[in-house]
Order: sequence, then structure tokens, then C-alpha cells
Amino acid sequence: MDQAIKNFFYPKSICVVGASTKEKSIGYELLRSIKLYGYKGTLFPVNPKAASVLGYKCYHTIGEIGDQIDLAIVMVPKAFAEQTIDELLSKNVSSIILITAGFKEVGKEGEEIEKTILQKVKHAGARLVGPNCMGVICTFQDISLNATFVAEKPGIGQTGFCSQSGAIAAAILNSLRETDIRFGHMISIGNKADISENDILKFWNEDPKIKTITFYLESFSNGETFIQSFIQGKGIGKPVIILKGGRTQAGMKAASSHTGAMAANDKVVDAILKQLGIIRVDDLNELFNTAKGFENFPSPKGNKVAVITNAGGPAILAVDSLEKEGLVLAELSQETKNKLKEIVHPEGSVLNPIDLLPGGTAEQFKEVNEIAASDENVDVVVSIFVEPIMVPAFQVIEGINGIISNKPIFQVVMPLPESWEKFRRDSLTRKPLFRNPEDPAKIISNMLFYSKRKSQRKYLSSGSPKIDLGNSSGFLDQSKIEKICNAYDIPLVKSLVVMKNIVNKIELPNYPLVLKGLSKKVIHKSELNAVKLNLKNKDELIQAELEILDIFKENNIELEEFLIQPFVDTKHELLLGGFRDSSFGPMIMFGSGGKYVEVFQDTCMKSAYITDEDVDEMIGQTKIGIILKGVRGEKSVDLNQLKKIILSSAQMMLDYPNIVEFDFNPLVVDKENSIHAVDVRIRITPTLSTCG
Amino acid sequence: MDQAIKNFFYPKSICVVGASTKEKSIGYELLRSIKLYGYKGTLFPVNPKAASVLGYKCYHTIGEIGDQIDLAIVMVPKAFAEQTIDELLSKNVSSIILITAGFKEVGKEGEEIEKTILQKVKHAGARLVGPNCMGVICTFQDISLNATFVAEKPGIGQTGFCSQSGAIAAAILNSLRETDIRFGHMISIGNKADISENDILKFWNEDPKIKTITFYLESFSNGETFIQSFIQGKGIGKPVIILKGGRTQAGMKAASSHTGAMAANDKVVDAILKQLGIIRVDDLNELFNTAKGFENFPSPKGNKVAVITNAGGPAILAVDSLEKEGLVLAELSQETKNKLKEIVHPEGSVLNPIDLLPGGTAEQFKEVNEIAASDENVDVVVSIFVEPIMVPAFQVIEGINGIISNKPIFQVVMPLPESWEKFRRDSLTRKPLFRNPEDPAKIISNMLFYSKRKSQRKYLSSGSPKIDLGNSSGFLDQSKIEKICNAYDIPLVKSLVVMKNIVNKIELPNYPLVLKGLSKKVIHKSELNAVKLNLKNKDELIQAELEILDIFKENNIELEEFLIQPFVDTKHELLLGGFRDSSFGPMIMFGSGGKYVEVFQDTCMKSAYITDEDVDEMIGQTKIGIILKGVRGEKSVDLNQLKKIILSSAQMMLDYPNIVEFDFNPLVVDKENSIHAVDVRIRITPTLSTCG
Repeated sequence: MDQAIKNFFYPKSICVVGASTKEKSIGYELLRSIKLYGYKGTLFPVNPKAASVLGYKCYHTIGEIGDQIDLAIVMVPKAFAEQTIDELLSKNVSSIILITAGFKEVGKEGEEIEKTILQKVKHAGARLVGPNCMGVICTFQDISLNATFVAEKPGIGQTGFCSQSGAIAAAILNSLRETDIRFGHMISIGNKADISENDILKFWNEDPKIKTITFYLESFSNGETFIQSFIQGKGIGKPVIILKGGRTQAGMKAASSHTGAMAANDKVVDAILKQLGIIRVDDLNELFNTAKGFENFPSPKGNKVAVITNAGGPAILAVDSLEKEGLVLAELSQETKNKLKEIVHPEGSVLNPIDLLPGGTAEQFKEVNEIAASDENVDVVVSIFVEPIMVPAFQVIEGINGIISNKPIFQVVMPLPESWEKFRRDSLTRKPLFRNPEDPAKIISNMLFYSKRKSQRKYLSSGSPKIDLGNSSGFLDQSKIEKICNAYDIPLVKSLVVMKNIVNKIELPNYPLVLKGLSKKVIHKSELNAVKLNLKNKDELIQAELEILDIFKENNIELEEFLIQPFVDTKHELLLGGFRDSSFGPMIMFGSGGKYVEVFQDTCMKSAYITDEDVDEMIGQTKIGIILKGVRGEKSVDLNQLKKIILSSAQMMLDYPNIVEFDFNPLVVDKENSIHAVDVRIRITPTLSTCG
Repeated sequence: MDQAIKNFFYPKSICVVGASTKEKSIGYELLRSIKLYGYKGTLFPVNPKAASVLGYKCYHTIGEIGDQIDLAIVMVPKAFAEQTIDELLSKNVSSIILITAGFKEVGKEGEEIEKTILQKVKHAGARLVGPNCMGVICTFQDISLNATFVAEKPGIGQTGFCSQSGAIAAAILNSLRETDIRFGHMISIGNKADISENDILKFWNEDPKIKTITFYLESFSNGETFIQSFIQGKGIGKPVIILKGGRTQAGMKAASSHTGAMAANDKVVDAILKQLGIIRVDDLNELFNTAKGFENFPSPKGNKVAVITNAGGPAILAVDSLEKEGLVLAELSQETKNKLKEIVHPEGSVLNPIDLLPGGTAEQFKEVNEIAASDENVDVVVSIFVEPIMVPAFQVIEGINGIISNKPIFQVVMPLPESWEKFRRDSLTRKPLFRNPEDPAKIISNMLFYSKRKSQRKYLSSGSPKIDLGNSSGFLDQSKIEKICNAYDIPLVKSLVVMKNIVNKIELPNYPLVLKGLSKKVIHKSELNAVKLNLKNKDELIQAELEILDIFKENNIELEEFLIQPFVDTKHELLLGGFRDSSFGPMIMFGSGGKYVEVFQDTCMKSAYITDEDVDEMIGQTKIGIILKGVRGEKSVDLNQLKKIILSSAQMMLDYPNIVEFDFNPLVVDKENSIHAVDVRIRITPTLSTCG
């Protein structure tokens, strides 16, 4: 583990620069949090005037501190930030958190100072968290550090939470007493001048004390590095959960003005996270509920759920939410039903959902949960308890939480506020409870998503270009397209390029033919009606030539050349394309092609670092993919051929960092179920990318 | 207003049968709730043995009560239920709540007793709520009634909440102190033996004290009656919000075993609610947040939102959620920006989202909210406050809640628990707050949905059949199909029905032709390849006849007759169909048709009681509808013709209650953009429905 990064979470000594004696100031409150939470290391508050703050002896300058400083937390006004960093670096401090705000996020001037500070830090071989952040927490007992402005006392857990927004971190800390969220580490990374999510991800992956890794992010600092963490070597061996703010266009604008970072296109983010087996959540509740799931419950082995309840309505809402997530109600075994009949009130139900009726006691709840969990048809139990008059919640909760099982049992309780208080005060089991009947469904589905994805996969990797494309720029010409398609087994329809007005002078392939009029100004040839299909003889071909020439003339566009191809009798039109995302690098896309591609939006996108399973998914999750497999008695197309084409075009993106984008639209399936690329466009740039 | 139903909510005297002296029993706790909440009317507890319960004088029998009884609440054991009802009816009690459970919901025997009781109640002209329910609440000060087991003290509001599940109602009551939900009336309707959502809906619509109507439902007692409430006369003049449990197949099973009611197909429910302008919510939080919106805030006039915040992260999450709901960030006027610049910290932002930074004070928050709300480009304000150290939440909240504006200002606060307590204890403004930055988006979008829909619409109504279909059963034959299509302006392609083996003996329409082999056993002709298209001459027709005969022979299916039609050169295949839902009655559906109809699932469904706006929506919300309007330079089809076909086929469903289903699949758009019905199937039943 990187020692400089380790010091952010496990410092034995901390220097707090900008400690203040003024209550309600950041410099006071952060120190107060450290004190209240009982930090186990040595503290060196620095304040140019005060003799002591909150009972700690104060140093007037950093230079006065004689001992080793593992971590420096800087809260001085912006004007003194650079000088403070200088002093820390000259004392060989290698881990610095710069809390102070007013840098890159407020404009050009701030950005310049941030850059200068970063250069100095890098030059000294130190690491910097922030600026514009709100601190760090380590709950483990040998450290016990809450170095934030919020003097709450987080419980000890095994989740790491890293937030790009200080306010989100603060809001979470504000809510701790109600939400019972626990974690091992929390860190706010602010402007991410140096330390980014990529560093934290790597560190937590190596830290055996952290079991689950969670992020609130507004941008990815380097998407390709992020991808590489997951696909190189052993990858990331722990569940990663991300809430990504700035989903939408407007959200992105807000993200930009907030942290000064460029947010990646949200559809790309969505595709990448899914492909890498990262759980993307919709809100903070789902983030921490899922983290609670991983931290406190065994992983479900499958999607069969038993629901236990003392009330119909909430069970129905739970079942609705389970099915929405693709989970199913378990079919209980006869043995289970027989056992349940001896416990459950005859007017209740021993089918799934199992209904104990409002009279169901704590003992009955415990027994029924045990029986359900031991049924081999059951993978997960959801137990719902609406507190009635005669059965107090506490015994029910503790009874069920005490069950030892290798299957997860999620408890939903809907009691009076007093019962929450009693649980928080008196519970010995301390397993998390959930408040809404809909909560467990998402947790279960997220945990299942993770267990399905965590198996080792073989990712495509970049190799050497198979042919030389030269160092030009723009769209490849037809001859290079033919060469590269040949090298990468793309079944390109043979085309003849002819200059205008000579269609009738050259040797042609067999009829029927297709004639296309080309101009760099016309991207969608069909809009101009510049494509003539199924030309059966020379007369039709000549007629087509004349019509296309007329059309170009009418539209005042210069026709540059004609393309002549054999006519492919089309059954389906597919789209296969690729592009290079500015953050995540090479991407590919497969789906429905042709004229209505924008209307149908039936596509699946992935990073070009693709696996066999990914290709299966691209086909299986698009409607056109389902159709290609054959519906209503139709024969399937050659799926192996299709997969090979997708894989080899992804390989092409990886081999050529100078391919900016490519587009096979349409990739045609003909009446005999063969696949042909009839229109291939590849755009390259002379500037070779250094990533990938 | 119906007096018997009015008595459930505004009783001046209540007889509680089954009052008990035993703590924690239902008969005791319900009486205790009534007492604690300070019921203003007269109470007659009935208990055969006790002299008094909770300080109230007890009657030993119902007969002993000499005074008028407005409402009876019955909690006796199931075995005594019938006898108790007898006694109440003989005392001319016209409003009875039967709390007792164990009837229809537990099986055959219970169902029989429930039926008997219902017959007696109906015969006496009385009304019954329940059985298997948990009571009623009226918070208005002249009544002050909490007749439930949960002794909480709900605040006075103007929302009516009606729950089919007693447990859901109980869970809501349990949560009141945390959620600050307020209502005017709450009623649990249990098995709905007599009083159903339809009665409650009608009553609340007439009761001027109720402003917003909310339901938790697991089934609709009579879908057609429900629809008629909305489309007949003045309809329903208040927002209606419904959480419908039992969405999914499995959920429906649970709903069934819970209340013994048949739940309607969820897609039908979804279509109906949307068509009628009813807000369907996903969970209880959204239900009550939306109700809070209608009750406490003016309606937004448009979708332009100003977001004000003291922290970037939560604002980004808010903006994400706004855009997800189709709302937009308002472009602030220059005047607004100038005003804001004088208040907002220079490192903050006067663009939207407006960022006051953590130092933003209560005064600043109030001023900035006022300025934003008075910008004419702004329809709604969302103000977000993450409590920092130096600015206490309470002043911020009260300042903003005190603003008088005709635009809604939704406050999201994320403070320490103490601030919630202080707000609940000390707030004078009492306007609801929201906890998550994502909460306001749904509320705004639900309120906008309602204001758009509430304008008066002209619904199709049922008329007389235009031709006589007889009283047969099954699919209509070709001659009747031709007659009815003619009567309803359905552009049916002329067809010739010929018995097998005579194709070459009869007079034919012009080539090209289509030949179809028919058999009642074959629904999807294309699966059997029993359709031959584009036959250009007699030779091809004879060849096609032979091939179809062979195919039927090979598959051992008897060919009954041939259909000969002119060949329509297809550009698009549409689906237009209708069916009669067991609860909601006549429905129609429009969308993409043809072979892949199940894969694309591109359809829109509505009740056949349709308006012009509904038809526009059916076309505009399907992908095929967008394509028909013309994309990428294509011409639009004749949308008026299409609309007329949809309307007249809906009229056909309304005119013939004996049409069970019809199917125009495909309805073909040809290369000249004309529409033709090439395959029409209409199934009728001899049993005339009495509804509709």
C-alpha cells in the first residue's frame, strides 16, 4: 500500500494548520470533531497567535513542530495556502489535505494557484487531497479520527465512502443518527487536483479493513485509468458502488461550475459501469442501503425470495418491488409448508408471502424466518413487520437478527418512533433494518448483479495495427477501407468507385446492382435520395445515374464520385459503430440500424475492452438481437459470425488509437441470413493518442 | 352528499360495539385513540359485562342506547358479527364500520357470512365499511375523531387518504411524527363488501373540506363505474393520487390472497389512470409528498425551475432528478442576475443553480428565494439547504416558508436531527419540508401532469350499433366483417373468399395478388408460411395455391378456405386492436404491427371512452407514430385518416358491448402512404354485457 495515501486514513500524527479559537469557525469545529471522536494519535494544531485551542497546545509555525508529521490538514485562508504548502513540503510532509476553497472551482485565477500548488506537491513527491474538500474519517479503534466539521460519531463499519462533494458528505454525517450508516473510512476529495477516485479505489482495494467501496462522483478524473484498474491483473476484488451526479445535460452544467471538471457523457458512464460490474445507484439511500447489504449480510445465491409478513399491504408492495427487479417469489417446499402450518394462524398464509397476521409474535417471527431460510428453494428472506398494538417491535427485531444462516434475511420494520429509539439504544445484534417494504429489492438485485459479474473475465487487449493506415486525417478512402476490412474480417461488400459520368463505360459486377452518389457534404445519402437500389440491367443503371446527377444539381451539391455495389436483398439492417470517448477511450456500439436508428434507439454500448460475455449481452439486450436469434419460426442468423465481427471491430479500435470513429451502418443481414457491411466509414486523426 | 357516507366521517354520535377493558386489545385501544384525540360527539361503548371503559359509561346491549346513533364501529369476534349487525339495523343505524376480520379474505366460509351480512345491510338501506379494516379518522376540529388502533395525533390537513390495506394505514399513522403527514380524512375500507373506492371518491369530490384525494388500492371494485365518475357530468374536480399495490403477476397473487379481490391487469390500470388524469405514484413517500404539494403549494404554471443552494452536490442531484422528469432549469433574466450579484458571494454563482456557498445566511436565502420567485422566467423554486456549522437551519426554513408568492417554493433541508425537532416544535409557518434533493422533481411533475389534464375533454360515448351482428358467438365471418368495416369507415382491403381447390376457376381482381390459406387452428398465418405475397400472374397464383395446400397437408391441418386480396406494397405495418377488460370494460390499442409486434412492444393502450387528445397521444407516444409523421425527409401519412380509423374503431367497441375483441393486424401503410386493413378479426359473444 502506498504510504502517503495510507497516511490520509491511518495517520499517527496530524498537524492542523489554521486551528482556530473561534467557535463555529471551520478551524475550530474540525479540531473539536477530532477531539470529541477521541483521536488516538498526536495532534499539532498550528495558530500564529493562540497558545492553545480546545485544550491542545498550539504551535505558532509549522517549523516549530519537531516531530514527524504523518498528515497535514490545512484550513488557512486561500491567500496563505501556497506558503503553508511550501512550509509543509520543506518539513517533508508527504500527505496533505487542503480544505480551503476558492481555487479551480471559482475561476481562472484560482485555477492558476491550484496548478502552482500541485506542481510543488508533485515535485516534492508528496500527495494532496483537495482543495475545496471537507476532511477525512477513520473509525477504526486504533485511529478514531473524525477530521471533518461535523462532530457526529459515526459507527465502525467496513465500507469506504469517498465523496467528490463536501456537502453530500456533510449531509450524510448530519443524518447518521437517523440512518444508522456506518463506515470504516470517509474522505472528501473536492477538486481532485492530485488524489482522485482512482487513487482511493486502488488503496481501498488493497486495504483488508475495507470490504465495500462507495463513491459519490460528479466526474471521472481519468476514465481509461479507471477502466484499467478493473481489467488489468486481478482487477478490483470488492464491490464498488457509485452514485454519479450530473447525469443529465443540465446536471453536467451544474457539475462543471461546481468542481470545474468535465463530466463524461452519461450514457457512456452507464455503459462502462455496467460492463465493469460496478453498481450504479440512483440516490444516496440506495447507495448506503446497498453498502449495508454487502457489509452485514451474506450474498444471495439466487433470485428466489421468501416474504414473511404480519400484514398484507406492505407484503404486496414488497413483492411488486421484487418483481420489478427481476426477482421471484420462491416456491416453498411441502416440508416447509407443513412446518409453517404448525406455527402460522390458520387464517394466515403458509404460501409465499407467508402471513402471520397482526397477532404474530416475536417467537413465531423468529421460527418462521428460520424455517424459510432453511428451505433449499429459498435464496433470500424478506421479513416485514408493521408494529401492531400487542406485539412490540424490539423482540421481533432482535429475534430475527439473532438467526444464524448463510442466507441474507432483510428486515423491514414500520413501527412507532419509540421503537426506533429503543432499537438504537438497546440492540445487541446491531444488524441494519430497513424502513420501506420496497428497500430490500434493490439491495438484493445489486448484490446479485455483483456476484454474477465478479467472475474473472478475459478482456480484449490492444495489439499492433494489422495494416498501415498512414498518418493522414479524416475519413479513410475506399481502398484503405477495403484493406482494413479485409485485415479485420469485416465482410465488406465489394464496391467499385467510379468518377462521375463514366458509369456506363466500365466493367460491372453481376446485376442487380446499387448505385450511390457520393459527396463529403452528404452524410445521410438516403435523405437526398442519392441511393438507387436493385438495378436489374444496364438501362436501369444509366437511368439511375441520370437521376442522381439531377438530384445533386437540384440541391446545388457537387457530386464527387459514384459507388457501385452488388445489391443485397435486405432482411435486417444493423448498426455497428465505434468512437473514442474523451475520458473512457475506445467504445463500440451495436444495435438496430438503418433509416429509423434515431427513433428506435435500440443499441447497446460498451468499452472496446470487451469480453465474450459482453458481446453476448450486446446481442441479447437489443431487440434486433432477439429478432436475429429467430422469432415466430424464423431461422437464427449465424450468431458466431456476428460475434466475430463485433469482436474484431472492437479489436480494430484498440489496435488503432488514431481511429476516432467508425460506422458500419447499415450492416445488412440478407434473405439468406448472411451478413454484409455495405457502407463503412472510418475516421482517423494524425495525432496519435497515448492512452489505451 | 350521501348522509350515510357523511356519517362515516362526520358522526355526531358513535356506538362502539366490542369496547373492551383489556389493555392492548383492539376494543380497548380504538376507544383509547378516540378519547386521546378528543372526539367532540357522543360515545356509546357497548360491552356486555363492563360498567365503564376508559371512564366512559358502558351499555350492555345496543338496544339499551336510547339516542340516535350516527355511526357504529363493530369489533366483536367474528362469531357475533352477524347478530350485532342485526341489532344495529333494527335500531336503524345506517352507517356501520365492521373492523372484525376473518371473512372473504380467509376462505369460502368467511365469504358466505360476509355475503349474508351484506344482503342484510343492503336490504335495510344501510351502508357498511369493511369488514377486515382498521377504522376512520376525521381531523377537523368540530369532529376530532381518531377511531383506529393507533393512538397518534394526526395534524389537520385537507387530504383524504383511503386505504384498502389496514396495515398500510397503520404504518402511515406510526410514522406521522417523523413524516409530518397531515390529512382531513383517513379511512380503511378492507374487504370493500359494500363501500368501495368509488363511493369514497364521489363523497370526497363533493366534500368542500377535502382538497386532494389519495388512495392505496390493491384492486378496483368496479373499473367501469370508476371511469364513469371521471368522464360523466363534471367529472372529478380534485387531484386524485393512487398507489396501486399488486403491480406485477406475483404481486397480484398476494393481493388476491389478501383481500380476496381480483386485481386488474396492471398495464390496463396504468393506461386508464393516465388517461383520466389520475396521478399514479410508485411508493408511499411519493404519494404523501405529492399530496403535500397540492395541499400546501400553488400549482406551478410551467416546467421552468430555479434551484437555490448552499452546496453544489445536492443541487446536482436535484437537477438530475428535475431533468429526469422533463423539467428544465430556468434561464434567469438579466435583472434577476443583477439583483442576485448584490447578495450572492462573488465565489458563488448567480446562474441557475444559484449557489450561496456554505456561508449563505438566512436573510440571503430569503432574499434570493424572493428574487428567483419573482423572475417571470421561473415557474417553480427549489431551495436546498445543507446545514453548515455557522448557519442554523431554523431561521433559513422559517424565512423561506414566510415568503408570499403565487409560485411554489419547495424546500429541501439536510440538517442535524436537532433541527428537525426544533422545526416541529417551534415552526409558525408549518409548511412541509423535504429531505432528499430528488423529492421536489416528482412533486412538480405530478402537479404539472394534473394541471395539464384537468381541462374539460370531450369523451366518446356509446351509441347504437350501426348494423346488426346477430347473436352468434366467435369470430365474425368475412361478409359481416365487410359490413361492419364499411359502417365504421375501416378501409378494409376487398377480399374474395373461395373454397379450396377452386382458385383457378373464379374471376379475380387485378394482379398482383395475395393468397392466404385459412384454418381456425392457425392464428398466425405467417408462422405456417400460409401467406403468399405479390403474385404477379395466374401461373404464380396456381403455384402458390399448390404450395399452401402442401404446407397444410404436411402439418396435418385442414385448410378451410382461401382468401384472395389485392397485394398492398407495404411501407409500415400497424396494429390497431381492442378488447373488453373484465373490470374497466372496452379498451383499444394502437402501435407497431406485423411479425415482430411482441419484440418491439411499441403500443399505446386507452379506454375506448377516448378523446381527440387521447388519439393524438396514442400516435405521438409510439415510435411508429413518430415514424408515420415523417422522419429524415419522409412525407407524413394522412394522420387525419389514421385518427378517424382509431376513433371509429373505439366507437365500434362502445356501440357493441358484445364485441369481446378485435384485431387489425396489420393495418398497412402502403408506399403511397394510404392506409389499408388487410387482416381484420372481430370476436363477439352472445351474452350482451349490461355495462358500458
